[in-house]
Parts: sequence; C-alpha cells; structure tokens
Amino acid sequence: MNVIEEAIRNNCKVLPGEVLKIDHFLNHMIDVSLLSKGCDEFYKAFADKGVTKILTVESSGIGVACLAAVQFGCPVLYAKKLFGKNSDDELYSASCYSYTKGVEYNISVAAKYLTSDDRVLIIDDFLAGGNALKALIALCNKADATVVGCGTVVEKAYQGGGDSVRAMGIPVVSLAKIASMSPEEGVKFC
Amino acid sequence: MNVIEEAIRNNCKVLPGEVLKIDHFLNHMIDVSLLSKGCDEFYKAFADKGVTKILTVESSGIGVACLAAVQFGCPVLYAKKLFGKNSDDELYSASCYSYTKGVEYNISVAAKYLTSDDRVLIIDDFLAGGNALKALIALCNKADATVVGCGTVVEKAYQGGGDSVRAMGIPVVSLAKIASMSPEEGVKFC
Repeated sequence: MNVIEEAIRNNCKVLPGEVLKIDHFLNHMIDVSLLSKGCDEFYKAFADKGVTKILTVESSGIGVACLAAVQFGCPVLYAKKLFGKNSDDELYSASCYSYTKGVEYNISVAAKYLTSDDRVLIIDDFLAGGNALKALIALCNKADATVVGCGTVVEKAYQGGGDSVRAMGIPVVSLAKIASMSPEEGVKFC
Repeated sequence: MNVIEEAIRNNCKVLPGEVLKIDHFLNHMIDVSLLSKGCDEFYKAFADKGVTKILTVESSGIGVACLAAVQFGCPVLYAKKLFGKNSDDELYSASCYSYTKGVEYNISVAAKYLTSDDRVLIIDDFLAGGNALKALIALCNKADATVVGCGTVVEKAYQGGGDSVRAMGIPVVSLAKIASMSPEEGVKFC
C-alpha cells in the first residue's frame, strides 16, 4: 500500500453513486507534500521519455499537474472548458462526458501551445470511464503531438477506462487503483 | 524589472476592456519554473509568519498556490464556486463580483478545513478591484482564522484593489504591479 492509497483508506468517504470524496488532499484541500511524493511515481515511469509538456484539464487536475511539472522541469498546459469571449486564438477542441456531473462539455487548448514537437504527459486527478483522458488524447492527436503516457492519482480500475487507454498503446500510471468501493464496505484496492 | 514583469512585457496582449491576457505562463500554459522563481518573493515576505495554509480560489489561482505551498511546506485550500450536490459539509461562503466576467458568484470552503488555528496566506493570480481577495478574507474572518497576508502574481495597481486591502492592515505582495495599460501603449509598470 503506497502513501496515496493509505491517505484514501484513512480518511475518504464513499458517497452514493460511487462518488469517492477526496477533499482532504486532492479535490478541495491539496496536500502538496503528499502529492509530490505521489508524483515521484510518474517521474520514475516517464523520466526518460523526453516530456516537453504536461497536459491536464481544469480545475482539479491543475494542482497535481503543477507538482509533477516541478519534477519534469516542463510547463503545464491546462485545457479549458470556456475560453474568454475576447479570445482570438485558433483552438483544438474535444468533447468530454463527465460521469460525476452527468453532462457533456467541450475542452479546448490554444493551438499555438500544443504542437507536433511536443512529447506530452497527460495528468489528471481521477480516471473512471476514461472520457477526460480520451478527450485530452484527442487534443494531442489534433495537434499531432506525441502522447508518452498518462498519470492519474486515482483510477477506478473496475470502470475500465484505464485499460481502454492502455489498449490504445498508451501507458497509464495510477497512484491508487481501486478494485471496488461502496458506502457500506469502503474502498478496496487492486 | 523582475522576471514576472519581464515575461509580461515580452509576450502579453492587452485586449479591449483592460483585459490582460497572460496565457503563456499563467492562465492557460503554466510556466512552473518562472512562477516558482516568482514565489520566492512571497516566501521572502511571509516565511517568518507561521503560515499553516495557503488559500486560493479555483481555477486559475491553483497552480501558483501549489508552487508557493511547496516553499512554505503547507497545504493549499481552494475555495470552490460549486460544491457537489452530494456535499454534506458545513460551508463558509462569501459573495464575489468578477470584473472580467461581469457576474456575481459565491465561493465556499468546507468549515472543517479552515479554523481559528490557521494562519493563512491568500494567493491569487490577478488583483484588480480586490473583490476576490476580499471574499477570501471574508471566508477567513468567518472561520476566525488569521490572514497573515496576500500574494498575487499581477496587480492592476491603478484599480485600487490592492491598496484597499492594504488599508485593512493586511500586507499584499504582488510580483508585477501595473501602473497603466492599453491596447495601444501596452503595459506600464509602477
């Protein structure tokens, strides 16, 4: 059991609808020291892949993406749900369905910040059905950028999103992999 | 001229309506190395103030707050605009008017994460009229937490928000202080 799994086991609440609430270190309070330790795993896995950019999506991925970027020594690019009305940038966009919120939305990046020279590590907080990761991969494909891999803090492995990304030939490293969870029985790790 | 002012001068666009677009290191791409250098100023100013928590608001403040928190060795708490429908937490809320978006909205934190034991450094990306900072200060007052100071990346000094917070007896450190700006003349620093 690693530090992230331990932090989940010690303090997390499983809400009805298979929602795992990780407010004490990830989705409201951000435990920078704990997550930086977690990011060591991303660095071990992808340090030799020539990562030029970390790509995430606002807003809950931004913290962990920045902490990972400190180790990789590269910038973070975060996809936005809304671009300002004053934006005149050429955009790459992809559609994404949010399982927890039950809505479909678009995410976009400015084309000038994601190019065919980029070797991208995609970082996000949660991986369930894999829709957010696949939308971020779609943005990279539109830019002709290379996706070297994905790193997520929590993977709900039983929902299959991680394995469907792995089946695309893209390595996925998750700091905590959940085999099952329920309000009654809590969280069981893989 | 410091590193942040230099980065603004070299690459920023002033849009109509006094909107400063800082997409290349702050509000879309996050230049982790540059912002970490900037955060040194926050650390110099507040290192001896016993900071226990950095408070910011989603989403564009999260990156710089996390990078500052690495130096202070404390967690980040980010106020949210929407709490999940499953939330059963007691909340502190404050109202905030967004100058750039032209809307009034509420921001909230879970009461259990902000207490009278906390010594809070408030961090945000932009400071203009000061509404976001004042809403974050209001959250701290509701929690009876001590605000040791505020740090912002860019202060539009001519809008007076920074000075109105300073007049409350709260020190404000801004990495770039703008005296005036326009699409025609660009940015002038204090």
